Amino acid sequence: MSQFPAEVRIVEVGPRDGLQNERSPIATADKIALIDRLSETGLRTVEATSFVSPKWVPQLADAAEVYAGIARRPGVAYPVLVPNEQGYERARAAGVEEIAVFTAASEAFARRNINASIDESLRRFAPVLERAAGDGVRVRGYVSTVLGCPYQGAVAVADVVRVARRLHALGCYEISLGDTIGVGTPIKAREMLRAVAGEVPMAALAVHFHDTYGQALANLLACLEEGVAVVDAAVAGTGGCPYARGASGNVATEDVVYMLHGLGVRTGVDLDALAGTGRWLAALLGRETGSRVGRATAPAPAPDPAEADAG
Amino acid sequence: MSQFPAEVRIVEVGPRDGLQNERSPIATADKIALIDRLSETGLRTVEATSFVSPKWVPQLADAAEVYAGIARRPGVAYPVLVPNEQGYERARAAGVEEIAVFTAASEAFARRNINASIDESLRRFAPVLERAAGDGVRVRGYVSTVLGCPYQGAVAVADVVRVARRLHALGCYEISLGDTIGVGTPIKAREMLRAVAGEVPMAALAVHFHDTYGQALANLLACLEEGVAVVDAAVAGTGGCPYARGASGNVATEDVVYMLHGLGVRTGVDLDALAGTGRWLAALLGRETGSRVGRATAPAPAPDPAEADAG
Repeated sequence: MSQFPAEVRIVEVGPRDGLQNERSPIATADKIALIDRLSETGLRTVEATSFVSPKWVPQLADAAEVYAGIARRPGVAYPVLVPNEQGYERARAAGVEEIAVFTAASEAFARRNINASIDESLRRFAPVLERAAGDGVRVRGYVSTVLGCPYQGAVAVADVVRVARRLHALGCYEISLGDTIGVGTPIKAREMLRAVAGEVPMAALAVHFHDTYGQALANLLACLEEGVAVVDAAVAGTGGCPYARGASGNVATEDVVYMLHGLGVRTGVDLDALAGTGRWLAALLGRETGSRVGRATAPAPAPDPAEADAG
Repeated sequence: MSQFPAEVRIVEVGPRDGLQNERSPIATADKIALIDRLSETGLRTVEATSFVSPKWVPQLADAAEVYAGIARRPGVAYPVLVPNEQGYERARAAGVEEIAVFTAASEAFARRNINASIDESLRRFAPVLERAAGDGVRVRGYVSTVLGCPYQGAVAVADVVRVARRLHALGCYEISLGDTIGVGTPIKAREMLRAVAGEVPMAALAVHFHDTYGQALANLLACLEEGVAVVDAAVAGTGGCPYARGASGNVATEDVVYMLHGLGVRTGVDLDALAGTGRWLAALLGRETGSRVGRATAPAPAPDPAEADAG
C-alpha cells in the first residue's frame, strides 16, 4: 500500500450536498457560519451552495445571500452548483469564481432527478462551460450513480466512462464520481475508477462516496490505492440521497480525515476543529452527528447526579 | 486485489461480546432466540455466552441456561468465553465443546480489565488449555488492544506478536486480534497482522475490529488483502468496549457480509435473514441498529397520514 498519494485534497460538500438533503433547514446566518468554520479548519475547497431554482430546492433559495456573507479566505475555493445558464448568471452576479455542474451515469436517474436525458444535460452545460471559460471561472463536474441507480439498478462502467470523458472534454477541470446511493463495494469502486482513469487523467478525478451501506471508507481505501487524490466528503455525514433508503448520508469528512492521517496522507485539516464543527452542525440540525469520529471524540458529558447516586 | 480469500468464516460475537457491553439487558429466552436465529442464517460460529463470574458480569449470569436452551445445529460451533478453571468447569458441566480465552497486548489494559498482568493471564490459561486438550475441547484465544490502549496509548506490534505466539503455543487453534477501542487505520492494521503472521500461521488468525472511529471495514479490507480469512463481527453492531469513548461497538456483521459478498468472497450467510435478525435485536435493545446495511434494507415504514396530507 505504498502507492497512496502523499497528500489528498478534501472537497467539503456539507454546506451544499449535505444541507440540501437534510430535513431540518438551518438559518442563512448559520449556513454562513458553517462555511466560515469549515474554511478555518484548513479545508481548501468548501462547496458553498447551489444556484438552482428556489422552486426546486427551497432549502437553497438563499444562495446569493449565503455567498455574499461568507468571509472568503485566501487559498480556499468556494464552488457553487449551477444547473443551467440562468443559474450561472445568478451565480456570477453574486461574485462566484468556481462552479459545479451535475449529471448522472444512469439514464433513469438523470430523467427523474434533473428531468433531462444525460445527453440533454450535457447539451445544457455546453453554453455554461463556454461562458465560464471566457469568464475565467473553473468548472467541476459531478457524475452521480456511478456504482448503481435506485431506478435502473446496475450501471455499466462504460456509461460512467462516457459521461466522465464528455464532461472533461467540455472543460471540467475535475470530475467527481459519485456513488449516490452508497451500494458500491471496494473492487467495483476500484474497477470503475480504473476504467475512467483510462480516459481522463487521474489528477482530474475525485471520488464521492455515501455511507448508506457502511462501505464508504473501504471504497475510498481501494480508490486511494489506485491513485485518486481528491475526495468529496460532508462534515457530520450530512445529507444523503433522498431517493436512497436508509438514513445515511455522505461519508463524514471527519472519518475520512482520520483514516487519511492514520495512513500518513496529508490533508492540511485540523481534525479536532473539524469534529467540533460537525458536532455544532449536528446540534443545529437537532440530530446526532453522522461522524463516528465526531462521536468518539466528543467531550465527556457532565456526570448525571441521578446516575452517580446509583453507583 | 486478487489475493482475497475465496471464502471467509465469520465469527459472530454479538450474543457474547455484543450483549455483554450493552446497557439494556435482554431476557434469557431472547438470548436463546438470538443465537438460534443467527445459526439459521448460515453462520458457522456463534459465540454464545461467557462463563465469567456473575459478580463481574451480571448480564451473563444465565450462561448455563442460555447454553442449555439453544437448538444446536450440526456444523455450527458455539464457543463460550472462559476466564479460568472454575469457568471451565462450569462450561463443561453445561456441555460446552469449544471455549475462548481472553488477554491483551497492553499491560495496562490487562491489569485494569482482567486484573492480572499479561503473563499472569497466560499462566492462568495454561491449566485450562491442558484440560481442554485432554477433553477434546477446542480453544480460541483473544488478544485485545492490538492497535491501541485506552490507558497506555500506543501498543508495540512486538507485544501483539509475543502474546499471539504464546497463545498459539499454548494450544489455541485460532487467535483473534482485536482493536478493542477502534483507533486503528488500514496500514497499521495490515502491518500488525503481517508481523503476527510471521510467527503464527495466517490460517490460525482472525481479525476483530470495532467501529468507534468508522475504520472497521477499511481495516478489514486491508487485512483481507493480506490474506486473513476469519473475521469477528457482531450483528447490529452491538457492544463496544465500555472503556472506549463514543457509542460505537463491534463492526456490524451485516456490513461485513455486504462488503465480502460485493468482493465476491463467499460467507455462506443469508444477508437478508441476518439483517432482519439485527433489526429484531435492536428493537429488543430499544435502540436503532448499529448496522448501516440493517438500516438501508429496513422495510419502508407505513406512510404517516399527517405527512401525506402535507403533500
